Amino acid sequence: MRSRIRVNLPVEEMPKKWYNVKADLPFKLDPPLHPATQQPMKPEELSRIFPPSIVEQEATEERFVEIPEEVLEEYVVFRPTPLIRATFLEEYLQTPARIYYKYEGTSPTGSHKTNTALAQAFYNAKDGIKRLVTETGAGQWGSALSYAGRKFGLEVKVFMVRISYEQKPMRKYMMNLFDGTVTPSPSELTSSGKKFLSQDPSHPGSLGIAISEAIEEVMADPNTRYSLGSVLDHVLLHQTVIGLEIEKQLELIGEKPTIVMGCHGGGSNFGGTVLPFIPRKLAGENIRFVACEPESCPTLTKGEFRYDSGDSAGFTPLIKMYTLGKEFVPPKIHAGGLRYHGSAPIIARLVHEGIIEAESFDQEKTFEAARLFAKLEGIIPAPEAAHAIAGAIKEAIAAKEEKREEVIVFTLSGHGLMDLTAYV
Amino acid sequence: MRSRIRVNLPVEEMPKKWYNVKADLPFKLDPPLHPATQQPMKPEELSRIFPPSIVEQEATEERFVEIPEEVLEEYVVFRPTPLIRATFLEEYLQTPARIYYKYEGTSPTGSHKTNTALAQAFYNAKDGIKRLVTETGAGQWGSALSYAGRKFGLEVKVFMVRISYEQKPMRKYMMNLFDGTVTPSPSELTSSGKKFLSQDPSHPGSLGIAISEAIEEVMADPNTRYSLGSVLDHVLLHQTVIGLEIEKQLELIGEKPTIVMGCHGGGSNFGGTVLPFIPRKLAGENIRFVACEPESCPTLTKGEFRYDSGDSAGFTPLIKMYTLGKEFVPPKIHAGGLRYHGSAPIIARLVHEGIIEAESFDQEKTFEAARLFAKLEGIIPAPEAAHAIAGAIKEAIAAKEEKREEVIVFTLSGHGLMDLTAYV
Repeated sequence: MRSRIRVNLPVEEMPKKWYNVKADLPFKLDPPLHPATQQPMKPEELSRIFPPSIVEQEATEERFVEIPEEVLEEYVVFRPTPLIRATFLEEYLQTPARIYYKYEGTSPTGSHKTNTALAQAFYNAKDGIKRLVTETGAGQWGSALSYAGRKFGLEVKVFMVRISYEQKPMRKYMMNLFDGTVTPSPSELTSSGKKFLSQDPSHPGSLGIAISEAIEEVMADPNTRYSLGSVLDHVLLHQTVIGLEIEKQLELIGEKPTIVMGCHGGGSNFGGTVLPFIPRKLAGENIRFVACEPESCPTLTKGEFRYDSGDSAGFTPLIKMYTLGKEFVPPKIHAGGLRYHGSAPIIARLVHEGIIEAESFDQEKTFEAARLFAKLEGIIPAPEAAHAIAGAIKEAIAAKEEKREEVIVFTLSGHGLMDLTAYV
Repeated sequence: MRSRIRVNLPVEEMPKKWYNVKADLPFKLDPPLHPATQQPMKPEELSRIFPPSIVEQEATEERFVEIPEEVLEEYVVFRPTPLIRATFLEEYLQTPARIYYKYEGTSPTGSHKTNTALAQAFYNAKDGIKRLVTETGAGQWGSALSYAGRKFGLEVKVFMVRISYEQKPMRKYMMNLFDGTVTPSPSELTSSGKKFLSQDPSHPGSLGIAISEAIEEVMADPNTRYSLGSVLDHVLLHQTVIGLEIEKQLELIGEKPTIVMGCHGGGSNFGGTVLPFIPRKLAGENIRFVACEPESCPTLTKGEFRYDSGDSAGFTPLIKMYTLGKEFVPPKIHAGGLRYHGSAPIIARLVHEGIIEAESFDQEKTFEAARLFAKLEGIIPAPEAAHAIAGAIKEAIAAKEEKREEVIVFTLSGHGLMDLTAYV
């Protein structure tokens, strides 16, 4: 018997705290700067964009942050998520590596995004906010926030990158089902949207532009706040529930990971997966971290490590990150969730310090990996997640060639059921 | 705290045997009859349609049938599936009933159909068959069999009811991804297809017609067999893995079900859910079983209990069941998987004996239930599964009005992510 392994963690074992890697890093991160003054942002300046609880959480140095009861109850809708050994893939590759994947696609909206969406909606509601505005690429984040907003009684408005809006109409239906409203971006609703449309009336859009539009809307209404699906420290914090579960699941079956991987767009699913394992590396353990990104949007592999704006119009604080430049408009690849010019500052710094590696994969190779995975392992991956699969396959083949035993773990961040047109 | 419950059964607890209710019934079922002679079908006659292992399984009287090792390994891709207490729905309804749902939507193709598809593909491959032909309504069964065929090295051809083919193009992409080929039915490929097209060139199709077409194809090639996704005894047998898991999951949390429910089309998810609980009722326990079907295709509630053909052209054996008549063409409702004129003979007989109840729900009410469930519980249900939700809500409201404590359990047979157009 192939002894296929699936670790269904009992719900009592679900983590009750998020992990904050900043408490364990031997260095301090560079602070976000005010876009006008270039001085470190003060908390009160940030609180026009985010509610006080989130501003506080963004800056906290505590090692563990308690997950509120209300958020835990929502997590139980879909958590703990399974950890599965990809025995069929291993056999196909004839690799000595053992490959495990953490599957986040069973969440209400089909990806890991729900982990932070629920937390953010909860904190906004608690702080008296009535309405959230956000952007979305492939639609994963927009649907997660629509769902979470509905759960905590907030209105949600989503600017969706136009090319994804056209490629993935089902995502719009899903957001509407959860009472979210959706506008393709660039739009005529904001001055930044208008600016980009005047340059190109059929502009495909980008996450950077959609963020600019969302922030413009936020500034126009004092009861509205902005919500970001990736990049920032508090978002990565919320996503650590993934890596913390992986830790427990591997422990249950007596495995120690040697390579931990994920796809990388803004860095939230990747950070959520690897950050809880960073202390092992700092302590000298044999463990590698690999961020897998698209060749056509190679932020970590070809970007510069410097301060840049998080959005295209320059409204957000400046953050120290790897960036392709805020004006960069990525090609119309199917992995819309990875079409971002920047990266999470935590991940960027860890890449810069040589603690995390980054690698890029072309679209053809990632879809090939995705098709293979679907047929062997029975999950149709989101195009974003397919980058992690391509990465895991590459490492498994290297292990075979070099006759190394490895324990590869990656997060399959979401299913691709709304992306099936990209497969044909 | 609301104490939301989710039972993630450890994989070691997955049932290793299917349960055969026929061993425990106080009566014998009426045998299938040859369509020409009207005499009981002989096993050798059936084996032109099904492989020997399936023919044998269809007739077995054993109480438990071992699940082959190879099928168990495939089950671990997605099983055990979770049992979840619908606390948010309970609160909304303010019902004293406790409502649990078994969620089968996390399977590779998104529904319970994979449970029998994998078993059938395995047995066909073991018996040397090279190619399977089948029909599909909403596409759940066609995708499940395409996936399973791919896993066990069989070619799969699917006749898909034309109206669903047009309503759900993503299902076609999914079948193609798993190397299945798909033809809308009625088609020009078979004489029965041609006959129905000549009556109406834009014929919406029906499961009965698609079955006729599939059987015609099977008869034309000695290396091809037919595979059915519902109705027959062996299909319900394979699906009992659902009810057997529910039994263990409820036991783990100390609950005893008083109402067990499911949607009913051909009877496979419903049978798989309730059959393991039938002995409790026969032993006099306080437990009810309710089959939920569409008002527009009211097989169990308005059909006749008699011998009828399983397909529209009259190629299949005659089976004793509730039927609306093999010529019945159901209206174009979105729950394509429930558009069948007949029913599983086991379920039919249990309804006839008063052991199982049946109730019908209109399309508007079921979509209302589905939308509510999605917003509260975070799962977008398939239109078929929405009938079970409508049923559970009705029972929960009755329990409230009559101040009864009930433990309602239903199977949510699949997700509705490929059906989102039906929601708008």
